[in-house]
Amino acid sequence: MEQRVSLVTLGVEDLERSRAFYEELGWHGQEVEETVFFQAGWMALVLWSRKKLAADCGLTEEAPTGFDGVVLAHNVRSTAEVDAIIKHAKRAGARITRAPAPTFYGGYAGIFLDPDGHAWEVAHNPGFTLAPDGSLALPDFSASG
Amino acid sequence: MEQRVSLVTLGVEDLERSRAFYEELGWHGQEVEETVFFQAGWMALVLWSRKKLAADCGLTEEAPTGFDGVVLAHNVRSTAEVDAIIKHAKRAGARITRAPAPTFYGGYAGIFLDPDGHAWEVAHNPGFTLAPDGSLALPDFSASG
Repeated sequence: MEQRVSLVTLGVEDLERSRAFYEELGWHGQEVEETVFFQAGWMALVLWSRKKLAADCGLTEEAPTGFDGVVLAHNVRSTAEVDAIIKHAKRAGARITRAPAPTFYGGYAGIFLDPDGHAWEVAHNPGFTLAPDGSLALPDFSASG
Repeated sequence: MEQRVSLVTLGVEDLERSRAFYEELGWHGQEVEETVFFQAGWMALVLWSRKKLAADCGLTEEAPTGFDGVVLAHNVRSTAEVDAIIKHAKRAGARITRAPAPTFYGGYAGIFLDPDGHAWEVAHNPGFTLAPDGSLALPDFSASG
C-alpha cells in the first residue's frame, strides 16, 4: 500500500447545504449523481449522503455524536490568513469551536465545524513547509531537536 | 481558502497499536510527542489520541459509533492491487466490511476498517486518472456525458 490518500469523503445530511458552504469558502465542485467532487490539491474531497456512505461501507449509520474522530487541517502561510479564513467560515455558517490562538506546537490555529460537524483546523505551523502549490512536507523531526 | 487538505488526523485509542497497523501496511511514520506523522503524498496523515484530538477541537469525546461519517480512499491502478491490499489489511488485523467487488461507478473496490474503525476504501476506478506519483486528477464530469 503506497503512502497516500486519494479521496476524503465527508458524509452529509443535505448535499446542497454542504456544497453551498464549501463554495462560499471559495471551493469549486462538480456534482455527479448526488455526489459533489472537489479537486483538492493532489487528491479529492467528496460530499455524499451520510446514510449512503455508511451503507456503502457495510456500516450502520448512527446519528453524529458531535465528534467524528477525524479532523482535517488546512495549513496556511500566515497567522493573518488563519484569522481571515476562520472569519470567512463563520460568515458562511460554520460553528467556531476554537477561536484562532497560539497552539502548543508553536503555531497559530482555529477550528471550525462544517454544516455536518466535520472539524477543520485552519493552521499556520512555521515548522511545516508549505510549497507554493500548497503541498505540505513534514520536517525530519529527528533532526529538529 | 485554497482548495486543498494539508493533514488528516485520525483519533486513536492506542497509538502504538495504530502505528503498528499502518507500518504493517508499509507506511513509515515519525513519532513526536505522542503523535505519529506519515507523509502521504501531498499532505500528511496523523495519528493522535482520540481524547486529546476531541479536546483540541473544543468538542466532547464520545465513544465511536462504528461510523465516522468520513471515509478515506486509497485508489490503485488495478483490481489485483485492490485484492492484494485488502488481503494485506486483513492480515494486519483490519476488519473487512466490504469484500472487493465491482462498484456501482464501474470500478472495483473493498472497504477495511483500521483498529479504531476508520474506514478506508481501496479502489480501482478507471474513470479517475492516477498519475505515476499517485496523485488523483478528477475528470471533467460534464465532458464525459
